[in-house]
Amino acid sequence: MKTRRTAILDSAARLIQQHGYAHTSVEDVIEAAGLSGKSHFYHYFVSKEELGYEVLDRQFERFTERGLAILREPMIDPGERLNLFIDTLVALQGERDGRGGSPFGSLASEMSEVHEGFRGRLDRVFDRWTQQLQSLLRELQPQLRGDVELRRMARFIIAALEGGMLMARVQRDPGVMQGIGEDLKRYVAMHRRG
Amino acid sequence: MKTRRTAILDSAARLIQQHGYAHTSVEDVIEAAGLSGKSHFYHYFVSKEELGYEVLDRQFERFTERGLAILREPMIDPGERLNLFIDTLVALQGERDGRGGSPFGSLASEMSEVHEGFRGRLDRVFDRWTQQLQSLLRELQPQLRGDVELRRMARFIIAALEGGMLMARVQRDPGVMQGIGEDLKRYVAMHRRG
Repeated sequence: MKTRRTAILDSAARLIQQHGYAHTSVEDVIEAAGLSGKSHFYHYFVSKEELGYEVLDRQFERFTERGLAILREPMIDPGERLNLFIDTLVALQGERDGRGGSPFGSLASEMSEVHEGFRGRLDRVFDRWTQQLQSLLRELQPQLRGDVELRRMARFIIAALEGGMLMARVQRDPGVMQGIGEDLKRYVAMHRRG
Repeated sequence: MKTRRTAILDSAARLIQQHGYAHTSVEDVIEAAGLSGKSHFYHYFVSKEELGYEVLDRQFERFTERGLAILREPMIDPGERLNLFIDTLVALQGERDGRGGSPFGSLASEMSEVHEGFRGRLDRVFDRWTQQLQSLLRELQPQLRGDVELRRMARFIIAALEGGMLMARVQRDPGVMQGIGEDLKRYVAMHRRG
């Protein structure tokens, strides 16, 4: 059964994803989670900030378990795993009708300049994501050309995916993200030994 | 001489770039632009929203004149022009110490879900940017492989640049954007014939 605390985190995640952190007030969370009032909220969380941090941590955990898990699947060829990972993000974007975008990208854009606590946490999120892609690329390395820098390629993949989700969100067109996913797979394929 | 109206637009652009639209109040703009009060502000702008729209329009005009102008430079080879354009965005990011990011990307991330007026305007901004890149790629087309879709390649370039600026902003490292710029140039080069 979902605890009250988890319900608050879920409501907050949904509100922050839709409206951003600044546009989400403790009052909004109280209403969405069906709490009786402020003291009820502060029984579970010290502040809006602590709630925001925990929402971010949970989103990255979930992304690691579901999205990034495919990167570590030992029974599938590493190149195929990377393609499946890209397809998964494209499909997710399609399901949401081009809306929503990346929770990390949105929060990064909103908070990097105004909140050092969030910036630091998001820096670690992108860093861990980069590391996980890099591990997969290391497995793929024997098939890649000798001049490929794995860390840089991992960052490039994340940048293209984040930028793609952003554009799909503005243009309300899942086709944008599909095209970027295909181009990204081709980009990696072009670095294979010929 | 800078008019009062222009001074307000400049102050607002700086504040929105640093703090986002939601975190920028009319009061902040009044203070930053040295206005005497609210009625002074409303003498020039009907609302914060109208001010925001005009800030965005001016930023895209400026970007068209300065950033995108290189794409139309007739004396330079189209491939070289594209590389210069990418280098310009990388250099801009470096100057700002990895901060700031793209004014369009930041606003897109903040406003796409919560404000249809801004989303529509940003959609047109990205569309015009895509068109201008596409025109350049059309000039480059005789040098490109036959299966390259120009519009898709233009979008991919913008997505990688926007994602790169976002990551550089979170990671506070201009090297991130440099790597992405180099990889992007290589991406285009890989689609050349022969």
